[in-house]
Amino acid sequence: MSGNSLGLLFTVTSFGESHGAGIGCIVDGCPPGLDISVEDIQLELDRRKPGTSRHVTQRKEPDSVEILSGIYEGKTTGTPIALLIRNQDQRSQDYGKIVDTFRPGHADYTYWHKYGIRDPRGGGRSSARETAVRVAAGAIAKKWLKEKFGIVIRGYMSKLGEIDIPFQSWDHVSENAFFAPNLEIVPQLEDYMDAIRKERDSVGAQISVVAENVPVGWGEPVYDRLDAEIAYAMMNINAVKGVEIGAGFDSIAQRGSVHCDELTPKGFATNHAGGILGGISTGQDITVNLAVKPTSSIAQERASIDKDGNPVMMATTGRHDPCVGIRATPIAEAMLALVLIDHALRHRAQCGDVVVNTPRIPGKIA
Amino acid sequence: MSGNSLGLLFTVTSFGESHGAGIGCIVDGCPPGLDISVEDIQLELDRRKPGTSRHVTQRKEPDSVEILSGIYEGKTTGTPIALLIRNQDQRSQDYGKIVDTFRPGHADYTYWHKYGIRDPRGGGRSSARETAVRVAAGAIAKKWLKEKFGIVIRGYMSKLGEIDIPFQSWDHVSENAFFAPNLEIVPQLEDYMDAIRKERDSVGAQISVVAENVPVGWGEPVYDRLDAEIAYAMMNINAVKGVEIGAGFDSIAQRGSVHCDELTPKGFATNHAGGILGGISTGQDITVNLAVKPTSSIAQERASIDKDGNPVMMATTGRHDPCVGIRATPIAEAMLALVLIDHALRHRAQCGDVVVNTPRIPGKIA
Amino acid sequence: MSGNSLGLLFTVTSFGESHGAGIGCIVDGCPPGLDISVEDIQLELDRRKPGTSRHVTQRKEPDSVEILSGIYEGKTTGTPIALLIRNQDQRSQDYGKIVDTFRPGHADYTYWHKYGIRDPRGGGRSSARETAVRVAAGAIAKKWLKEKFGIVIRGYMSKLGEIDIPFQSWDHVSENAFFAPNLEIVPQLEDYMDAIRKERDSVGAQISVVAENVPVGWGEPVYDRLDAEIAYAMMNINAVKGVEIGAGFDSIAQRGSVHCDELTPKGFATNHAGGILGGISTGQDITVNLAVKPTSSIAQERASIDKDGNPVMMATTGRHDPCVGIRATPIAEAMLALVLIDHALRHRAQCGDVVVNTPRIPGKIA
Amino acid sequence: MSGNSLGLLFTVTSFGESHGAGIGCIVDGCPPGLDISVEDIQLELDRRKPGTSRHVTQRKEPDSVEILSGIYEGKTTGTPIALLIRNQDQRSQDYGKIVDTFRPGHADYTYWHKYGIRDPRGGGRSSARETAVRVAAGAIAKKWLKEKFGIVIRGYMSKLGEIDIPFQSWDHVSENAFFAPNLEIVPQLEDYMDAIRKERDSVGAQISVVAENVPVGWGEPVYDRLDAEIAYAMMNINAVKGVEIGAGFDSIAQRGSVHCDELTPKGFATNHAGGILGGISTGQDITVNLAVKPTSSIAQERASIDKDGNPVMMATTGRHDPCVGIRATPIAEAMLALVLIDHALRHRAQCGDVVVNTPRIPGKIA
Repeated sequence: MSGNSLGLLFTVTSFGESHGAGIGCIVDGCPPGLDISVEDIQLELDRRKPGTSRHVTQRKEPDSVEILSGIYEGKTTGTPIALLIRNQDQRSQDYGKIVDTFRPGHADYTYWHKYGIRDPRGGGRSSARETAVRVAAGAIAKKWLKEKFGIVIRGYMSKLGEIDIPFQSWDHVSENAFFAPNLEIVPQLEDYMDAIRKERDSVGAQISVVAENVPVGWGEPVYDRLDAEIAYAMMNINAVKGVEIGAGFDSIAQRGSVHCDELTPKGFATNHAGGILGGISTGQDITVNLAVKPTSSIAQERASIDKDGNPVMMATTGRHDPCVGIRATPIAEAMLALVLIDHALRHRAQCGDVVVNTPRIPGKIA
Repeated sequence: MSGNSLGLLFTVTSFGESHGAGIGCIVDGCPPGLDISVEDIQLELDRRKPGTSRHVTQRKEPDSVEILSGIYEGKTTGTPIALLIRNQDQRSQDYGKIVDTFRPGHADYTYWHKYGIRDPRGGGRSSARETAVRVAAGAIAKKWLKEKFGIVIRGYMSKLGEIDIPFQSWDHVSENAFFAPNLEIVPQLEDYMDAIRKERDSVGAQISVVAENVPVGWGEPVYDRLDAEIAYAMMNINAVKGVEIGAGFDSIAQRGSVHCDELTPKGFATNHAGGILGGISTGQDITVNLAVKPTSSIAQERASIDKDGNPVMMATTGRHDPCVGIRATPIAEAMLALVLIDHALRHRAQCGDVVVNTPRIPGKIA
Repeated sequence: MSGNSLGLLFTVTSFGESHGAGIGCIVDGCPPGLDISVEDIQLELDRRKPGTSRHVTQRKEPDSVEILSGIYEGKTTGTPIALLIRNQDQRSQDYGKIVDTFRPGHADYTYWHKYGIRDPRGGGRSSARETAVRVAAGAIAKKWLKEKFGIVIRGYMSKLGEIDIPFQSWDHVSENAFFAPNLEIVPQLEDYMDAIRKERDSVGAQISVVAENVPVGWGEPVYDRLDAEIAYAMMNINAVKGVEIGAGFDSIAQRGSVHCDELTPKGFATNHAGGILGGISTGQDITVNLAVKPTSSIAQERASIDKDGNPVMMATTGRHDPCVGIRATPIAEAMLALVLIDHALRHRAQCGDVVVNTPRIPGKIA
Repeated sequence: MSGNSLGLLFTVTSFGESHGAGIGCIVDGCPPGLDISVEDIQLELDRRKPGTSRHVTQRKEPDSVEILSGIYEGKTTGTPIALLIRNQDQRSQDYGKIVDTFRPGHADYTYWHKYGIRDPRGGGRSSARETAVRVAAGAIAKKWLKEKFGIVIRGYMSKLGEIDIPFQSWDHVSENAFFAPNLEIVPQLEDYMDAIRKERDSVGAQISVVAENVPVGWGEPVYDRLDAEIAYAMMNINAVKGVEIGAGFDSIAQRGSVHCDELTPKGFATNHAGGILGGISTGQDITVNLAVKPTSSIAQERASIDKDGNPVMMATTGRHDPCVGIRATPIAEAMLALVLIDHALRHRAQCGDVVVNTPRIPGKIA
C-alpha cells in the first residue's frame, strides 16, 4: 500500500529499478481459465520497448519477460501471476555524476527528501522503465476484456508539441514510430523531432486512448468513479500532467444544451460524456486524453543544486527519449485496461454476472 | 470499498441520498488531540450551501451538521468521527416524472443498468448534494494541516464559460457568489449567468486550487502519486471532466528547456511542475485546475428514453444550479485537503515524523 | 482503515461511543435488490440488547435502529446503508471516578497510551456497546446469505465457566437467557451465575457458531483464508481470547489418520476440518468455537494506578454483565455472516456467478 | 487483494507454486535506511528449510534467496523489495496420480471447485512451500523491530501430539530439530516421531510465540485489533486450526478476579491478557499459542473421490513432513513480526513517532 500497487481486485504490485537486477510485478486476482502465453505479453512489451527508432532512447533492452507463477498448462489458475524482466543494458557509470546532484525536473530531489536515501542509478525506481511491467500486466487484462466482453482498447498520439495530428485510421498507428493515426503527417513529425534533438531539447505530446464495447454499468458511484480511476491511472504514468475524459476542458465553455448527450431508442446521440455518466460507464466509447510533459533529461546545461545545497550546472547526457510521449501509447492503453478489468470484477462482485428481472433498453448503444 | 470511501489512512466513508433522511460520513484515522467544533465544520459547509445567491439552486438546506462521535471535550480522540446532516427541503414530488425516464446527462441511465434499481428522488445517491459531506470532512483535514504544518488550501473560479477570470487577490474570493478572485469582473459574470438562465441553459467553469506550505516528500513513487491521487479526488467531484497539475495541458507544446524547473540554493526558479515531481511534493505550491461541465439539468426540452426504451421529450424543471462550477470551489479545496492529510499520514508511517541523518537543502523552497 | 472497518467488498464501518450521542455504521457494497426493513435488523438487535434477564447488565437501551440511507421502497439500492442507534441510557456520572484511573483488564490504559487522550465515559469506544452495530450489519448479511444460498448461521453457548453444555437442540437456544442449546441445564446455569454475582465476580464462556449450506469454494488461498478471516472477525469481539475451527486445539493430539476427513461419492465422511480446507470452504458445516474471558468489570477492590502512576484501589460499580459471553452469541453469528458475505462477493468477483465447463462432483456434500 | 497480500502498510504480496519456477514476494512499505543483506534473510530461511533432520520432509531445497530490488548499497530505499527463491527439487512426476483425484485433507477439492482448474504439482499454490517467503519477509520485519524498538520475537514447540513440552530455556530451541525449549525431552520426541513414521501416520503440535519489548499502544480499537490480526496471521499458516492469546481457552473457566491483570506502579502484576487489552498492546509480552493439525499426506490408504465423483483409494507417497508443526516455529515468528511491523507503522501514521503533552506512567511495564 506504499504506492506500488494498482487495483482493488485485479491488483498489480510492481517492483524494480532502472539499473537494478530487473523489474517485474505480481498480478493478483486474475480470473482463472484464461489462456496466457509469454508471447501474449511479449507482443505488448515490444510495442513499448526502447531502441526501435532514432526518436527514442537508444538503450538496448529486449524486455524479455519470464512468467514465474500462476499459469498451468497455458491457463491462468486464479493464483498470483509473477512476471520478471531482467535488466540487460545497465550502465550505472553513466549516472555517476548524479549521485550527489539533483537533476532538474526529476524525482531526485523529492525522493531524497522523502526517504533520506535514493538509488541514483538511472533514476532508480522513478525511471519510466518501470512502466514496462504495467504494459506486461495490461496485456493480461486486455486479453481477458477482449475475450469476455469484446472490449478493444487502442491509443494513439494526437499531438506532438505544437503539431495537431488529425485522426485518419487505426491502421496507421502501428506503422510509424510515433503511434500516429495518420501516415501523411509522419514525415513532418520526424523533421520536428530531428530539429528538437539537434537543439538538445525535448517536447511534450498528447496521447488519446479509446475503449470500445465496455458494457453499461462499470464504475462506482461517489468515489472510485470510473473516470476518477482512469484519471488516477493515467496521472500515475511518468510525465503525465493532465487528463480529460470526453469533452474534457472544452466542456468549460460549452452550454448544457450542447454538452449533455441526448438519448434515443437507438442509443446516445452524441458522446461528450466520453462514455461515463455519474462515474459509471454508459456503453459508449470511453475516450481519454492525456498531456505528457517534455522529457526533463536534456543535454543543455541547467541550474541545479547538490545535496548540500550548493549551486551546480548540469546537462543530462545519458540515453534518453527526446519526447517521452512517443512511447507512452502502449502504457496508456495498459493503464486503461487495468482500470477496466478491476471494475469489471468489482461490478461482478456486487451486482453479479447478470442482473436479473430488470427491463433493459433494447438495441446496442454505440 | 464499493466506491463510497476515500483515503487509505484518513478515510472518509460517505452515505446518503439527495431526498432521503440525510447525508453524512464517518471520518476514520484522524490524529488524536485536534480541537474540532461544530463551528469549524459549519463554516466550510456554509460556503458550499445552496440558496445563497440567485446564481445557484434555490433549494433551502441549512446543512446543519451534527457530530455523532469521535470528539471528547472538544478534541478528537483518534476514534471515528461520524457526521450527520439531515435533509430538510425534500421535495420528492418534484421528481415524480423521472421515476421511469432517464434524464440526459445524468446518472439515471447508468445507475439503472448497474444496479437494476435506483432511488429517483433528486438523483438519489448521484446528486451533488453528497459533496456537502466531503466539505465537512475536509474541514477537519484542513484544520489539522494548518495547525501541524501551516498548510493553506484555497481555490477560486478561474473561468466561467467563455470568460477568463484574471487572478487579482485571494481577498476577493469570499466577497462574491462566484468565488472569483477578481471583484471587477463580477458584474460581467452576473450578466453572463443571468443570460444563461434566461435561455434556460447552463454552462461550464474552471476551478483552480492551490496548496501552500506542503512539506517536501509527500506522495508515493509509482502508483498513488500525489498528482494521481489529486486527479482521482477531483475527478470524483460530480461534473468534473478534466484535471491538470502545474502546466498541465500547456506542457504538451512546451520544450523541456522551458518546462523543467531549475533548482537554486534559494529554491526552485519556476513551478511548471505544480509542486510535484515523480509523484512526490517538492515544497512548492501545489496547483490544480479542474474542468467542470455545464449542469445537465436544464429547462429545455431534450430527447431521452424511458425504462422500456421508448422515446420521450423531457425538460428538467426542479431547482438546479445553472452552473455547478459556482459552488465547486469549497468542494475542490476539501478534496485537496483530504488527499494531503492522507499522504501526510502515509509519509509519517513509512518515513517517520523526522527523517534523521540526512543533509537537507537550507532555506525555504518557495 | 484505522481499525473501524471490516470487510473488503461488503464493508462495515462503525462509529460511536458507549455514552456519546449514539452508535452506528455504514454498510457499503451490499448487493442491490435485497428486501430489508427496520424489523429485519431490529429482530437481531433485540437478541443482543441489554436488560433482558438478571444475568446481564441492567442498562436500559432499546437499541432502536434508524436506517438513514441505501434503501428505497424497501429494497437495497447498492448504495451505502447507514444505520444509527441513538444512546438512551447514558449515565456518564457512573464513570466519573475512572477519568484519571485505569480500570484493570480494560482498554483504559492502552487507549490512554496510544492516543494520549480518551473518552472515559463507559469505556468510550472500547465498550462492547459497539457490538450492537455489528449485529445490525450482520442482519443484512444473514438475510442475503439466506435468500441467495439458503445459508443458515446459528450459535449457542457451549460452556459457561467450568460447566460444559451438551448440545440438545437448536430449538432450545432462543428459549433461555444463555443461548444454551439445552433447556435441562438452564437451572444449573442460573444458580451458577447467581453465585458468581453474589461473589461480586465474573466468569468466562465458550460460544460455538455453525454455518450450514455454504457453497464449496469461498475463501482465499494464502492469506485471507476463510478460517483466518473468521479467526480475525471473532477475535475482534471484545473479550475473545481464542478461536478454533473444526477440531481446533484437539487436533494437536490427533493422528492424521483420524483428523483427515475422507471423501466419498456422497460427500465427506467426517468434518474435523470444520468445513474449510486450504482456506476455502468445503461445503460442509463451518464450525467455530470462541473463548470469551470473564468480564473485567467486577465489584471487588482491585489494584491499579492513576494517570500519574500512583497506586489506587478500585472496584467497578456501574452496570455490567457478570459474564459477557452470555450476550456474545448473536455477535458471533453476525461476525460469521459478515465474513461469509464478503467472501461470497470476492468469490463472485474472481470466479463469476457460475464457473463453466467444469465437471463437478454430483450430490450434496453434508 | 485476492488473498495473496498481508499487511496494510508493510505489505507482503506472495507468489509461486510448489513445483513451478519458484516462489517469492514483494515487500512494500519497508522504512528506508534499514541495513538488509541476503544473509539476514537466508539465516531465517535456513531455520525453516526442509531436509535438515529425519523428522521432516526429505525434499532438498536450499531455499537460496535473491534480492531483486529495493536495496541500494546494503540499505532499504523505501521502494519495493522483491525476493525470489527458485525451486530446485521439483519432482512433478511424484504427483502425477493426483491430477484427477483429490487427496483427503488437502486443498485439492476446494481449489478445484473454486477455480475450476488447479495446478496439481505438489499441491501447487496450496503447498506449505509458500511459507518460505513469509519467513524471508519476516526476517526484514524482525530486523527493523529489533533495531528500532529492541523487540525480540521467538517461538518454540510447546506440545507434540500428546506430549507436553515444559519450557526450560530459550537456548535449547535452536539445538534440536523440534524447536523444543527443553533438550531433556528431545529423545522422547524423537522416539515418538519415529513411531509415528513407522505407523505411516502423522500427528499435530502446538507452537508458542512470544514478542518482548513491544511498546504500549500498537493495535487498533474495534477491528484490526492486534490480537485479531495475530489470529488472522497465524490461521493463515497452513494446517493451523486454532489460535489463542494469553490465557486463551483457559479463560473460559477463569473468574474475573483471577484473569484480570492488576496494575501497579511497577507495571502489570500478571499477564493473563497476553500483552493485549482492548486490541492494543500493553507493553507486556505478547503470548500466542497455535494448534497445528497432523499432516494430511500419509502413506496409508484413504478413501477419496476423483473429479468425476468416483470412489478411489489413495495413499500419499511423496516426501512429506510427518508433523508439519515441526517446521512451523520460524513461520509463526515471521507472521508475528509481520503483524507487529504493520501496526508499528499504522500507529506512527495516526499518532506520530512521539505523542507529546501526555503524562505517562513511569517505569518499565514488564
